[in-house]
Amino acid sequence: MERLIGLLAKLPGLGPRSARRAALYLLKRNDSLLKPLARALSVAAENIRTCSVCGNLDARDPCGVCADPRRDDSLICVVEDVADMWALERSAAFRGRYHVLGGALSALDGVGPDDLNIPALVARAGRAEVSEVILATNVTVDGQTTAHYIADRLAECGVTVSGLAHGVPVGGELDYLDEGTLSQALKARRPV
Amino acid sequence: MERLIGLLAKLPGLGPRSARRAALYLLKRNDSLLKPLARALSVAAENIRTCSVCGNLDARDPCGVCADPRRDDSLICVVEDVADMWALERSAAFRGRYHVLGGALSALDGVGPDDLNIPALVARAGRAEVSEVILATNVTVDGQTTAHYIADRLAECGVTVSGLAHGVPVGGELDYLDEGTLSQALKARRPV
Repeated sequence: MERLIGLLAKLPGLGPRSARRAALYLLKRNDSLLKPLARALSVAAENIRTCSVCGNLDARDPCGVCADPRRDDSLICVVEDVADMWALERSAAFRGRYHVLGGALSALDGVGPDDLNIPALVARAGRAEVSEVILATNVTVDGQTTAHYIADRLAECGVTVSGLAHGVPVGGELDYLDEGTLSQALKARRPV
Repeated sequence: MERLIGLLAKLPGLGPRSARRAALYLLKRNDSLLKPLARALSVAAENIRTCSVCGNLDARDPCGVCADPRRDDSLICVVEDVADMWALERSAAFRGRYHVLGGALSALDGVGPDDLNIPALVARAGRAEVSEVILATNVTVDGQTTAHYIADRLAECGVTVSGLAHGVPVGGELDYLDEGTLSQALKARRPV
């Protein structure tokens, strides 16, 4: 029991108190939730692996996105993390391929180019069918440093390197936006 | 994958977004967290049951508290939920027995006396060794209604029926307390 609570408390978003609540909640719903969850976790532990092409997590290798023949081979979207890739997939706005770096360069955390999935990206970008690499790292200091580093590395591959547009988010109110976003949105203004 | 996220999202404290984050977190820590958690949940699903004496959840029946010979058989503390019992156990201030009702009377939610573990409590309170029943239901309308109902039911058992003291919580600042608590604390004032 204590062990279960201790493990649940390690999940992001759950502290020791809410882990106890979650454990009790699970124990009271043995058949409807506890057993299915135990089974789903076992299945995931056995089956989910990192895609050897793009770095996604999936039950197949290559993953569903890499194996899909209807997607555009000429576009590669570079993201820091699997969660970012899933977020872009939910938007359904991108039908090319992905490349997951597994983090961002960070002098503070001691993450260098060798710790990220960059050599595989350079190899993929060098293939004849690839025409454009979209850098979709986070708009943080580390993410943008990583994007600049990758752009430099890809300079000799003969591919177009682009980045996501910055500006006012959809549904965003100007009053609540930071100055950086507003100045980017102004600089990148477009004719209506 | 979707199934795992859906199940995690049912936990209290996790929504769909944080469930996705938790699932990714688990998948990245296959050996250190995902497998142990799957195992702990399976073990819990197989072994944890409701104690037939008090209603606690434990791997044994009777549970560890009911089976402990060092505890005082003459005191029974009545709580609404297993979580309340655990909270009292953490305080280490009570060395008697417990009785978990499994909820509180609620006209709104359609919870009547027959839905709670009350007959078993009346039977336990009728035994010769029991001298006092402490009603530790929540200080809410439902909890206090339940406490009054149980006090009525126990009137013929010949046991002392008591309730928790109300007042200023330890570490509480008067400025932040509600009027109800302050008026209770004043009414129940004690010589220093």
